Amino acid sequence: MTTNKIEIIDASVRTKRSQNIKRQAGSNESSAEAVKRTAKPAKKNTARRKEPVNKKTIKIAFLGGLNEVGKNMTLYEYGGDMFLVDCGLSFPDQDMLGVDLVIPDFTYIEQNKSKIRGVFITHGHEDHIGGIAYLLRLINVPIYGTKLSIGLLRGKLREHGLLNTADLIEIKPGDKTALGGFSVECIHVNHSIPGAVSFAIRCGGGTVVQTGDFKIDNTPIDGEIIDLARFAEIGKEGVLCLLSDSTNAERPGFTESERKVGESFENLFHRAGNRRLIIATFASNIHRVQQIMDVAQRLGRKVALSGRSLENVVSISEELGYLHVPEGLLISIDMVNRYPADKLVIITTGSQGEPLSALSRMAFSEHRKVEICPNDCVIISATPIPGNEKTVGKVINELLKLGAEVIYEQMYEVHVSGHACQEELKIIMGIVKPKFFIPVHGEQKHLRKHSALAKSIGISPENILIADNGNVVELTASSMRFGANVPAGRVFVDGYGVGDVGSIVLKDRRHLAQDGLVIVAAVIDSVSGHIVSGPDIITRGFVYERGSESIIEEAKQVVSTVITDMLLGSAHDVPAAKSKLRDAVSRLMYEKTKRSPMIFPVILEV
Amino acid sequence: MTTNKIEIIDASVRTKRSQNIKRQAGSNESSAEAVKRTAKPAKKNTARRKEPVNKKTIKIAFLGGLNEVGKNMTLYEYGGDMFLVDCGLSFPDQDMLGVDLVIPDFTYIEQNKSKIRGVFITHGHEDHIGGIAYLLRLINVPIYGTKLSIGLLRGKLREHGLLNTADLIEIKPGDKTALGGFSVECIHVNHSIPGAVSFAIRCGGGTVVQTGDFKIDNTPIDGEIIDLARFAEIGKEGVLCLLSDSTNAERPGFTESERKVGESFENLFHRAGNRRLIIATFASNIHRVQQIMDVAQRLGRKVALSGRSLENVVSISEELGYLHVPEGLLISIDMVNRYPADKLVIITTGSQGEPLSALSRMAFSEHRKVEICPNDCVIISATPIPGNEKTVGKVINELLKLGAEVIYEQMYEVHVSGHACQEELKIIMGIVKPKFFIPVHGEQKHLRKHSALAKSIGISPENILIADNGNVVELTASSMRFGANVPAGRVFVDGYGVGDVGSIVLKDRRHLAQDGLVIVAAVIDSVSGHIVSGPDIITRGFVYERGSESIIEEAKQVVSTVITDMLLGSAHDVPAAKSKLRDAVSRLMYEKTKRSPMIFPVILEV
Repeated sequence: MTTNKIEIIDASVRTKRSQNIKRQAGSNESSAEAVKRTAKPAKKNTARRKEPVNKKTIKIAFLGGLNEVGKNMTLYEYGGDMFLVDCGLSFPDQDMLGVDLVIPDFTYIEQNKSKIRGVFITHGHEDHIGGIAYLLRLINVPIYGTKLSIGLLRGKLREHGLLNTADLIEIKPGDKTALGGFSVECIHVNHSIPGAVSFAIRCGGGTVVQTGDFKIDNTPIDGEIIDLARFAEIGKEGVLCLLSDSTNAERPGFTESERKVGESFENLFHRAGNRRLIIATFASNIHRVQQIMDVAQRLGRKVALSGRSLENVVSISEELGYLHVPEGLLISIDMVNRYPADKLVIITTGSQGEPLSALSRMAFSEHRKVEICPNDCVIISATPIPGNEKTVGKVINELLKLGAEVIYEQMYEVHVSGHACQEELKIIMGIVKPKFFIPVHGEQKHLRKHSALAKSIGISPENILIADNGNVVELTASSMRFGANVPAGRVFVDGYGVGDVGSIVLKDRRHLAQDGLVIVAAVIDSVSGHIVSGPDIITRGFVYERGSESIIEEAKQVVSTVITDMLLGSAHDVPAAKSKLRDAVSRLMYEKTKRSPMIFPVILEV
Repeated sequence: MTTNKIEIIDASVRTKRSQNIKRQAGSNESSAEAVKRTAKPAKKNTARRKEPVNKKTIKIAFLGGLNEVGKNMTLYEYGGDMFLVDCGLSFPDQDMLGVDLVIPDFTYIEQNKSKIRGVFITHGHEDHIGGIAYLLRLINVPIYGTKLSIGLLRGKLREHGLLNTADLIEIKPGDKTALGGFSVECIHVNHSIPGAVSFAIRCGGGTVVQTGDFKIDNTPIDGEIIDLARFAEIGKEGVLCLLSDSTNAERPGFTESERKVGESFENLFHRAGNRRLIIATFASNIHRVQQIMDVAQRLGRKVALSGRSLENVVSISEELGYLHVPEGLLISIDMVNRYPADKLVIITTGSQGEPLSALSRMAFSEHRKVEICPNDCVIISATPIPGNEKTVGKVINELLKLGAEVIYEQMYEVHVSGHACQEELKIIMGIVKPKFFIPVHGEQKHLRKHSALAKSIGISPENILIADNGNVVELTASSMRFGANVPAGRVFVDGYGVGDVGSIVLKDRRHLAQDGLVIVAAVIDSVSGHIVSGPDIITRGFVYERGSESIIEEAKQVVSTVITDMLLGSAHDVPAAKSKLRDAVSRLMYEKTKRSPMIFPVILEV
């Protein structure tokens, strides 16, 4: 449950109070307009300003990651210098038809090209690095990240043909990088991918800590516990503001250690007995892959990998020393049928039920090499990301129909989250001791809960701020407030196109998806207006044409009548006739079917 | 977790063993074909038959509700008589673009029109009665149901203009209705709607119990506990087969009593203090509505209803005596702004985040009467049905942005399920003591778990059967096996059309949704083959046309070239030219955009 006292500085709450401020300020606009305008935080909060922006002000512009899960991107500005933390992508909602992925709007970056000193990446997940290839096409700035983050990014940039020109700089925990007026320190954290870091960002205006995605894992697989001591030291030095990961802010308690999953694997390997094991997980969860490999090695099973992203990540992380693959353990997926079931584990992608993934192909009997049978035990080592529940469920059902046992529930602890739960979030706040707090990475409900947690440990409500993409927060030693908004939003990537699919194209796709289309084609004599060819009617996605001949015939009649009425004679107006045709055919189709296909009148004159 | 020993008679497991049976049976088909065909259970199980169907055989044909959630429909046949239990609908998956709802395939019903004696409905939810209006258009048979089920059905049939001709017969717990060679006894159960019943179906072949949806509620709101004593008596008489609700078969323990929710409401009303309360729930959960009204009455708040279905259900159930509305409690939604916040509760639809529902309209500031503000406390008294998580999340986020408190989690117990959990399912099996067991109402994973539960309480694995839609199960006193399959499947309702949207139309809609379309139009001289008008290019849902002029120009060039190449001269082949045009334009578009819009060449000759 969320407590949301309005004292928290909030970009989105439309309170009566803020309306009053507007009105008292002498606005002549109507009440409705006032409500509308107060919804824009920058305008509303202007009323609170008392002093001009001074030199000691740190500005933080949110270009992504607020009120959404994904496309994280935060811009820091101090003096004449700017830099970014992360540049991620998000995956399209189901109403973004045909869109492949979504990236942040880079308009503000382009407007400030000359000031941008670089991009610091917290870790190698898509929602933190997936936008970089698109950013680098516009502005070639240095990218700073840990070895694995840079390694994974390198692969992406190679695909985009940008590797040769990109300036990739490896950093490691403890490093302090000077960047214009900033110094950025790298702090080790735990997450569901190795090489994750937080940043302590220092400048003349003070210190800001941005956690990135993190959890506190006291028994991590690589032995490297989150550097709480360093967070504490920085906290002692004095932190002006903390930006922290809100993903699990709704979940009480602590996130379990990744090691817990290894224990479950050990049990389940024994339980599987003579059966073949197939384990689906996220490709980038290298510590999970490590644990599967370790148990397999110990219990005498070979490991095969299925899924391109998994093969890539395994090869990169082995090369960079993040993954230790025991000699002779890995076999090619082409070889799986040469090994007895009890001597084999297949690690696969597809834990989110993605339709083209290896696990889906296995479930629907379309996998080239793996045929599921009742002697298989499938473990889905993940929980569905909200929105994926149905696709994951479908894959489970199909695997069950093929006779496999499927382990997909919490009871065996085959998955732990990579994000901090409430008590961990409190620990970070408690040791960093920020003056100001801004929850990031999450939907409104996550940001609210995280704010409530901050209040619960004693951060003053007026020092907590819930922002939105496009907001700019101005920080001085004594104040935190909203500045003027900057352009921010989502840009759709569809095929090669970046930004050429927008609301109009999507609206048309939705219309076509709903009721299909009808093309009405005819040729008329440009002099007499007589129909000389047609009318022809083509439909797609509207009705099953066989069985709907009578509607088509009626439509032809309507078309002929309209054309004759409108166009016969010399002064014919083709655009008006097209518009009339669209209306008449649309009305007929709706009367007959209660559907509204998109109508295309094609009238050609000869 | 699912245990799935293959001893269970199973329509869907494709075992090596069953392939062997096929091959030993002398089939010449290839191995791949064998695998494909063994996936059809009726064929596979034919191999197990030893005796012809005799007169004492009860046949149960599954026309819906297996391997899916929704459109429940079961056909019973004995001697020359048939009847149905339920006739529900399901809601479209997200890939069924433009489809309004899904009903069972009635082919087998139509083929046996003369034998069908009636339909017995277990309760008034859409997934059990929503198909009846479509069934009655084909075959007007009597419908038997409890008072509320018939009351709700009456409303639907009125909308479909079928009320005057329909033969609706009220039954009540304890009633035994003779229907041809059958006698159907009605047994009271608890569920998330009043008037829910199980059926004990008796005929010369034995007794079959079908539970319908149920839970065991020891403290139900209307005081009427599920009639376990009657289940036990029937069990003592001897039950041949039990068909039981699998919805919650994955959930351990017991489902909480509906009364628990009332206690939570009491607490939350106090907690809300001076704030306005808005509670979203399922319209048909009349006991939930009753509890809200009772608490409101006690604590001096008026109740307003928002949402057409809610208003309907409340008025029907009050009229039929299922809901007691205290005098003067209800006020019109038009009056809500005349009452102080702390004197008001608004009950609303939209607990699943449905985009057009009252709660969604409130969240997106589009509700005619209710404007959400920080003085609102919104309770979502439901859990998201799988697939609805994201839409529910969106509504919650928007409500929070407006400053409301939103209570949507399990911690306050503002919702309980209407379906039996594992221990309840075992109780029913335990007291009904069936010889044979068939889990129904659920996806494969639910059916499997339910089978495992049956085994766990000692039902012999070979007496448990997992069936699929289209299967016919033949029961004698000593055997249960699959008979020949019957037609079954899903029929899409889109607007007025029933069944005219099928796989081809959907495939086209999906294609259009993904990449839009391009129309290429030209008129050619039928003698010379010269282009006399055009080529014109129209696109929709493909690219934003402004900014894509160069692609359009290139496409025109390609079209002109193809038409000139293909059609110039006397022996021109327009269909071949169209096909060539489609390929050429498609290739160009893909090269330029990596998208594959649907291409429509419109070539008219004059």
